[in-house]
Amino acid sequence: MADINSKLEIGVTTGPIRGSRKIHVESVRFPNVRVAMREIALEPSSGEPPLRVYDTSGPYTDPKATIDISAGLPKLRRDWIVARGDVEEYSAREVKPEDNGLKGPDRSAGVPAFPNVEQRPLRAKAGHNVSQMHYARRGIITPEMEYVAIRENLGRKQMQEALIRDGQDWGASVPDYVTPEFVRDEVARGRAIIPNNINHPESEPMAIGRNFLVKINANIGNSAVASDVANEVDKMVWSIRWGADTVMDLSTGRNIHDTREWILRNSPVPIGTVPIYQALEKVGGIAEDLTWEIFRDTLVEQAEQGVDYFTIHAGVRLPYIPMTAKRVTGIVSRGGSIMAKWCLAHHKESFLYEHFDDITEIMKAYDIAYSLGDGLRPGSIADANDEAQFAELYTLGELTKRAWEQDVQVMIEGPGHVPMHKVKENMDKQLAACGEAPFYTLGPLVTDIAPGYDHITSGIGAAMIGWFGTAMLCYVTPKEHLGLPDRDDVKVGVVTYKLAAHAADLAKGHPAAKLRDDALSRARFEFRWRDQFNLSLDPDTAEQYHDQTLPAEGAKTAHFCSMCGPKFCSMKITQEVREFAAKQNQAPDTFLAAEDAEKGMAEMSEKYRAAGDLYIPAAE
Amino acid sequence: MADINSKLEIGVTTGPIRGSRKIHVESVRFPNVRVAMREIALEPSSGEPPLRVYDTSGPYTDPKATIDISAGLPKLRRDWIVARGDVEEYSAREVKPEDNGLKGPDRSAGVPAFPNVEQRPLRAKAGHNVSQMHYARRGIITPEMEYVAIRENLGRKQMQEALIRDGQDWGASVPDYVTPEFVRDEVARGRAIIPNNINHPESEPMAIGRNFLVKINANIGNSAVASDVANEVDKMVWSIRWGADTVMDLSTGRNIHDTREWILRNSPVPIGTVPIYQALEKVGGIAEDLTWEIFRDTLVEQAEQGVDYFTIHAGVRLPYIPMTAKRVTGIVSRGGSIMAKWCLAHHKESFLYEHFDDITEIMKAYDIAYSLGDGLRPGSIADANDEAQFAELYTLGELTKRAWEQDVQVMIEGPGHVPMHKVKENMDKQLAACGEAPFYTLGPLVTDIAPGYDHITSGIGAAMIGWFGTAMLCYVTPKEHLGLPDRDDVKVGVVTYKLAAHAADLAKGHPAAKLRDDALSRARFEFRWRDQFNLSLDPDTAEQYHDQTLPAEGAKTAHFCSMCGPKFCSMKITQEVREFAAKQNQAPDTFLAAEDAEKGMAEMSEKYRAAGDLYIPAAE
Repeated sequence: MADINSKLEIGVTTGPIRGSRKIHVESVRFPNVRVAMREIALEPSSGEPPLRVYDTSGPYTDPKATIDISAGLPKLRRDWIVARGDVEEYSAREVKPEDNGLKGPDRSAGVPAFPNVEQRPLRAKAGHNVSQMHYARRGIITPEMEYVAIRENLGRKQMQEALIRDGQDWGASVPDYVTPEFVRDEVARGRAIIPNNINHPESEPMAIGRNFLVKINANIGNSAVASDVANEVDKMVWSIRWGADTVMDLSTGRNIHDTREWILRNSPVPIGTVPIYQALEKVGGIAEDLTWEIFRDTLVEQAEQGVDYFTIHAGVRLPYIPMTAKRVTGIVSRGGSIMAKWCLAHHKESFLYEHFDDITEIMKAYDIAYSLGDGLRPGSIADANDEAQFAELYTLGELTKRAWEQDVQVMIEGPGHVPMHKVKENMDKQLAACGEAPFYTLGPLVTDIAPGYDHITSGIGAAMIGWFGTAMLCYVTPKEHLGLPDRDDVKVGVVTYKLAAHAADLAKGHPAAKLRDDALSRARFEFRWRDQFNLSLDPDTAEQYHDQTLPAEGAKTAHFCSMCGPKFCSMKITQEVREFAAKQNQAPDTFLAAEDAEKGMAEMSEKYRAAGDLYIPAAE
Repeated sequence: MADINSKLEIGVTTGPIRGSRKIHVESVRFPNVRVAMREIALEPSSGEPPLRVYDTSGPYTDPKATIDISAGLPKLRRDWIVARGDVEEYSAREVKPEDNGLKGPDRSAGVPAFPNVEQRPLRAKAGHNVSQMHYARRGIITPEMEYVAIRENLGRKQMQEALIRDGQDWGASVPDYVTPEFVRDEVARGRAIIPNNINHPESEPMAIGRNFLVKINANIGNSAVASDVANEVDKMVWSIRWGADTVMDLSTGRNIHDTREWILRNSPVPIGTVPIYQALEKVGGIAEDLTWEIFRDTLVEQAEQGVDYFTIHAGVRLPYIPMTAKRVTGIVSRGGSIMAKWCLAHHKESFLYEHFDDITEIMKAYDIAYSLGDGLRPGSIADANDEAQFAELYTLGELTKRAWEQDVQVMIEGPGHVPMHKVKENMDKQLAACGEAPFYTLGPLVTDIAPGYDHITSGIGAAMIGWFGTAMLCYVTPKEHLGLPDRDDVKVGVVTYKLAAHAADLAKGHPAAKLRDDALSRARFEFRWRDQFNLSLDPDTAEQYHDQTLPAEGAKTAHFCSMCGPKFCSMKITQEVREFAAKQNQAPDTFLAAEDAEKGMAEMSEKYRAAGDLYIPAAE
């Protein structure tokens, strides 16, 4: 196994996740579709087959791949896109100094530009629409849809044989088996999106929707205060290694354009941005100086680079802003507050709202998905589910329908800070208002009193709202509200959200989610320590914690653990119970009858069986 | 402020939690009842009063207290107990070498004995019952009940003025204000317990019950493999510093007796144990050699030391054991598996079940509460809510009623590993089966796939089941399933569970829980960084995280943060919104009308107001 910590000179982590190997499952329908997955090998003595798991890590975990950050990843989807015959190359918009927050053409103040920038981006030919939704509505199954179907099906074949659906899905329609037709149908009706800008052909297709696996997003990005481009590319690679399904680049300050280029060219997952952040930099941070023209130019700039989804805060409408005056924490969304300031300063309706259809025209020419921003989300428990928040949500519902009229993909952003008893109302209202467009929430945090632990306060809300139907959970790191996340924080945030998303899949009754829990639990029960580590979301941490108490190599195959020690072990006793039951050569129930015949047990037993229900108090 | 890290030679952390001071609220009814609380001072410029919070940390955070681990804490309750006139001193059972797992009288192999052991413990006079439940049922309000009432009332007076109850309490009856009569009534009907062994007079009374604040327990204890007595006392003090309401000493191996003595004499919170662990040591770890006599002797030994609640796995009945044979992870409770092994080896009903009334006789002589153990709890998602688990639960319900017949306090232990959609069923069945006796759950973990992060997988389940009505949440540390927790793990576990318990209180609609969230959110909104740190569950970590990005002292009073930087800040914009609204000298609604009059807004506005509902899509 390659050293997982081997770092290339340019500073990203490569090599397989421990105990795993990269495999590719080939499509029958499309010969050039090969879906990447990760396979965890289990101890041969266990007799268990390897377990396949969803793999977001891209070529970085493939020892066969050559990683060269300066060249970028292979353009996996380029041929699929071009083959559709509805795109054209054209001369890219010229990069201006202000795109990077620079005053003049001297680039020495900035980061190095990506060496290999595409000068001829793609866009839809005149009169065409290249969105996956558009194809879906015309009945076309794209290679992207096929990729998603194969990718989502992990383990379902295996489960189908003994399929017991166990869950509460709150009205979702998770299928036993995902066909490409199902993917097409979900995208066509707007219940799922496949965010894949035609200028980001490096991306591996993935779906965000209530009837697919719950996804997670990791935020990265430099800020005016700290961080640099190498760090950000490394964080992107690091976050997808641990399971981020999409990554948002929330950079502010300088070098926004170049940082994004480095990230996009090296990202196998969809990249989202908040274009208003960059537009604001272009006007020197003065919100009231923003114009539709500057914003539009920024959209085109980012569209050509390949951003897969845009957060657009078009629901922050002028009449809703005063509703926030009584709040404890007012407007906490950065984009929301930029637009609020603009609206107030001009006494005018938001230009994002007014130009919404113009924005949609751009989106459909590149297949960029909307992530309709919740600029008025609550920033505290006190402000949860208030009138400003829901007023905006209903406007997002209106805008969803307008985007859908042009076959543009949409998801809806959600809160934020919400106590547990108000979480479900968010989901219910979103489903009703937005026609089941995928919901994409930040947490929510279920209490405000634990800064430093907000990955956990929000992981609770995230697991719950994921169960209720949220399609993607935006991670929160331990540094939330306090500072910028470093590499360790990113990992903790991703793993926390991965476990929350998985808990949601389990509770929804996803047909195959339980496979991994069961495999890990069997490994735990049988003291296959290595299998237990390898099956976990973070094998390195699991092993490290184990070794702190029992560092010896032998302890990893020992049939005991540090909690009870070698002398006594509860797991061992269960094995004895089983052996005892087996020795009796009787089914457990017969064995029970034999036991009942013992003195003093007969009467109890009679009542027990007469009641016909094991769940009745024995004394009744 | 004292250095919070100042460590005494014997190695426990003392000194106030930063930004806080210890206060005592005096009872009117009982002149010798002074209830310890913690008060967090806020910046004078904020104009906000100090916030009082529940304080589990005992004298260790009181600079006025003299801490001497070898002398133990002052015997706060001794006079209250003796004044009731129903107890007698007697000669303690002699400590035997085997109590500490030693073969002979040579103690050199063990830890030092506590220097100041009480040779004349208390017990109820013949024919008397000293349980708080017994007093409660006779209409007596004890100083313990008064202490609990004052302690639980934090902030409620303040909230009563503008009381808006906001929550979903699932049938709980959380009062607006806690009177001692209410406490008495809850204890009398078995819905709450006050675990306070008369031989643990150092303890500060606290209640565990669905209609009180949700409590948390921290487990400590040495094991055969690692740990020592100084470590364990330090962990106890450390865990209550961060908020553990009770502590369980789960020691196994050697020195069990002496370790427990050191812990009890220095603990201001109730201490729980699992007596079967020590009994097993006395028979050399051979479960089948256990007898009722050895177990009984162990109960008396621990009763005289002052253990406040005993986990008794009396629900692991012979007929239920075979139900576990088909499980993925069998029996994972250590106590459960000991009893299972005993039952199987002897082909007999559990001696704990058969001698249950004899155990109750001992409990009532010292006022020890039952924590009826869930020996058949599920150890994996696959085994959740199965027949073995619920068969045992219904037996625990039967035993609850038998204990109540003798006025002995009872709580019920619960799982374990449960996916989210099966969590509520646990609560509902427990309430029905056990007559609303307090539920005390371990997590539950909502997925099995994240070893190393099981404080989080379980924190999710804990917050949910706490909301549904669980009275106390047993913490899980990041080391769960992997190794023994160290000091850092204990803190992370406690803080995680504290936030889960608080989230549960919030969601239940506890009348004062939101005070702390609101105070912290206001501090956050107003950039009172120090107040934000001090109001948090873990001020040290919050400050440390902040300082990693913006270490300068000035940054702590800066009106911006590292996320957006000084140039732009969303919080600042909200302040502008408010100022703008104020400048208009109009209520927000009038201001809105003024805005609506702007060109292009009038029509929208009319529809908006005509609809009479802010939550209607504006375009409709």
